[in-house]
Amino acid sequence: MTMIRLCICSLIFSVCGQVLADQPEKQVVDMIAYGDYVLTMQQDNQIISDGAVAVSNGVIVGVGTAADIDNRYTSEKKLSGKNKVLMPGLVNGHTHAAMVLFRGMADDLPLMTWLQDYIFPMEGQYVDEALVDAGTRLACWEMIRGGITSFVDMYFYPDVIAGAVADCGLRAVVAAPMIDFPSPGFEGWDDSFKAGVEFAERWKGRHPRITPALAPHAPYTVSKVHLGAAFKAARELGIPVSIHVAEDRAEVDVITEKYGKSSVELLAGLGMLEQRTIAAHVVWPTDADIAALAGSKTGAVHNPTSNLKTGAGIAPVPKMLAAGVNVGLGTDGAASNNDLDLWQEMRLAALLHKGVSKDPTLVSAIEALDMATRMGARAVGLGDKVGVLEAGLRADMIQVSLASPRFDPLYNVVSHLVYVAKSGDVVTSVVDGHVLMENGKVETVDINAVRVDTREISSKIKADLENR
Amino acid sequence: MTMIRLCICSLIFSVCGQVLADQPEKQVVDMIAYGDYVLTMQQDNQIISDGAVAVSNGVIVGVGTAADIDNRYTSEKKLSGKNKVLMPGLVNGHTHAAMVLFRGMADDLPLMTWLQDYIFPMEGQYVDEALVDAGTRLACWEMIRGGITSFVDMYFYPDVIAGAVADCGLRAVVAAPMIDFPSPGFEGWDDSFKAGVEFAERWKGRHPRITPALAPHAPYTVSKVHLGAAFKAARELGIPVSIHVAEDRAEVDVITEKYGKSSVELLAGLGMLEQRTIAAHVVWPTDADIAALAGSKTGAVHNPTSNLKTGAGIAPVPKMLAAGVNVGLGTDGAASNNDLDLWQEMRLAALLHKGVSKDPTLVSAIEALDMATRMGARAVGLGDKVGVLEAGLRADMIQVSLASPRFDPLYNVVSHLVYVAKSGDVVTSVVDGHVLMENGKVETVDINAVRVDTREISSKIKADLENR
Repeated sequence: MTMIRLCICSLIFSVCGQVLADQPEKQVVDMIAYGDYVLTMQQDNQIISDGAVAVSNGVIVGVGTAADIDNRYTSEKKLSGKNKVLMPGLVNGHTHAAMVLFRGMADDLPLMTWLQDYIFPMEGQYVDEALVDAGTRLACWEMIRGGITSFVDMYFYPDVIAGAVADCGLRAVVAAPMIDFPSPGFEGWDDSFKAGVEFAERWKGRHPRITPALAPHAPYTVSKVHLGAAFKAARELGIPVSIHVAEDRAEVDVITEKYGKSSVELLAGLGMLEQRTIAAHVVWPTDADIAALAGSKTGAVHNPTSNLKTGAGIAPVPKMLAAGVNVGLGTDGAASNNDLDLWQEMRLAALLHKGVSKDPTLVSAIEALDMATRMGARAVGLGDKVGVLEAGLRADMIQVSLASPRFDPLYNVVSHLVYVAKSGDVVTSVVDGHVLMENGKVETVDINAVRVDTREISSKIKADLENR
Repeated sequence: MTMIRLCICSLIFSVCGQVLADQPEKQVVDMIAYGDYVLTMQQDNQIISDGAVAVSNGVIVGVGTAADIDNRYTSEKKLSGKNKVLMPGLVNGHTHAAMVLFRGMADDLPLMTWLQDYIFPMEGQYVDEALVDAGTRLACWEMIRGGITSFVDMYFYPDVIAGAVADCGLRAVVAAPMIDFPSPGFEGWDDSFKAGVEFAERWKGRHPRITPALAPHAPYTVSKVHLGAAFKAARELGIPVSIHVAEDRAEVDVITEKYGKSSVELLAGLGMLEQRTIAAHVVWPTDADIAALAGSKTGAVHNPTSNLKTGAGIAPVPKMLAAGVNVGLGTDGAASNNDLDLWQEMRLAALLHKGVSKDPTLVSAIEALDMATRMGARAVGLGDKVGVLEAGLRADMIQVSLASPRFDPLYNVVSHLVYVAKSGDVVTSVVDGHVLMENGKVETVDINAVRVDTREISSKIKADLENR
């Protein structure tokens, strides 16, 4: 009996040893993130059931089934995927983050009353480095909480913005504002242009998550000569331009009268289509404009909530998608939204164009997701880094919990992500391989301290509003 | 010293006794609910800062400042109002609750493909008492969680629906479906009409929270004679009619060709405007239709998400509001939404019509709130019971937490409720003075048991979908 036992033991040891010898060494990685469903947003839009992503040095090194990834990699840091979708982080293609401090200050007013009686005077009086710092941090908290991992910002004091973004762990294109009129910190074009170029020179190549850019405000607020100077400077610096384009009818009328061409034609003549440009809004492109944008280096960022709220109109997104324009999604600033929730923009984009065109097949759920991830990243020039879960790209990804009964039953994950999921369902955020949020708690923003700062500022604005 | 002490003591007792004697006895009530902000939705839309509502026997007995209410009432049950808005519960004016079991089953398809290849065959195969019971309970959980306190339902097996609603504590108008074609449980008009009338007879006056109603499906699926019979029966029973009206262009074309008039004109000829009618959708009314609806007993229920998603179009809500039509808001069923979230409908209603009309002053935040509460209650015939926090009305109310940094800064409560709040921000629900949800936890639905039931059904539907 003893003899037989020994034999069996040695047999087992022998077999085990053989198996271990045959098994390749597992690669130790920094993190493995799991998902009951992994939406890679690779070309086939495939969903991997019971999938995982391995991350090393901020880069995705493996994407596959959990069994496959566990077979090839091992890590001390594992993010459980139970009842969760693992997917690329969302790209907010256009915002003015610090404007969260003007959230709900004025709504439902004629556009000119809103701008001239509220936004412009309040910006003139209150926007300084302290406001931008506090506001950007509050906005970053909200964006992280809601699954945004990259954003394109356009606001005053870009050095302050870049510093706040670096601290909170997000990825951003930070575009320095330039305009022909007085603005916070500037008298007009010359000083704003000079400061913007200097900002870009300071930040170019300085931080792996921050891309500096130039933001000439819009074709109707910046002269053609100045627009040309901005595009030229950006071209020479090798950085993007972020600009409002064809946002409302009034712009179309002004530009047509002044130049005899559309905003897109005007900007195309200044080189826009051959260099990386992030064109916000594009509500009123002509068919020729759409054809020109398709296949160009200019991405169009659709901001459905803002465009509705300001009465700007409804961008011809189905036409742009059909033509092959890279269309992203944006929240715009919280003064015209009033939050920074890309899930609402996805849902609205998927609904709005169906209703307007009376065609329920337009802007499908996967197209809305595409605009918020893969195509959205391409639209803002980050397509070589993020937007897809694929080996070699940066590890920017989120987990969305499907635990709420609101998700019952679950027939189609993509449908639920667009038509049911809310920002509060996002529970994990990872950027460049670093965890910014886990179990729904944002780890990289000291929100209590930020709220002390923002309330000090907002209490003054509130008193001002009440004394009007 | 001792003598002086005794004197002081007796002086104090004397003064105290006097104060107590002067103070009127406080009324003991069942509940006092507080709110840092109380949005009463009384005619002046006033917000009471640091307010409260006292409730006795399911009825609101006092509304005022917390100091005033605490002075007049006392209760063992107090709902803290810290960082919260106390407001009327939301009224979902049109849904098919049990259709949550078809949530996300099919999206982004041509309307006829969606109906004929998915909805109709799946309803034919799977809708029975068990599905309606489980589905309605799941839907009630979601509606309670999101702050809906009353809803108008239109689905098969209304006795089962009424039973589920009675159990979960919500208030509902339960409308029995009638249609000229075969439907779950019925061969056509005769048996569905008979069963509907019998249902109404059974439930009329039976339960304080349940109003039975008749639901002839729509002018294009029910003959004129049958429509007339339904309106007559409802009139005789003294109950409402709930009906789909002018939902899409196809209906307008069919009805115009068949009758030489609009759906509203057709129904007006059958008595609709003189009796309580809940007209769902009303996407395509003529100007004459709008004038006829204004001041009538017919309320129009706007379902913006569903109308966009199915490509039905965009209802002329600003025109209807200007004319004085009572307009409510609805989610429609989750097969065409895909959730039961009236906050999204409010937000969408406030945004959509601004964008379509290019007028940012249309459908203000308070108008959107009105459609979801006060006017919404009137639109569905519950205006004498709920929709306003006012002494004498039933105590249907919710608390919305403003604790998230998403609400920072707080300049305008009404703006934040419409443009920022989400269903998940609702933390308390009270109907008829009973607490259905506290601290975000729904108390009146055993959601785990419901999920066991719904998953048994949905797993069969899922297998069916996968085998197609």
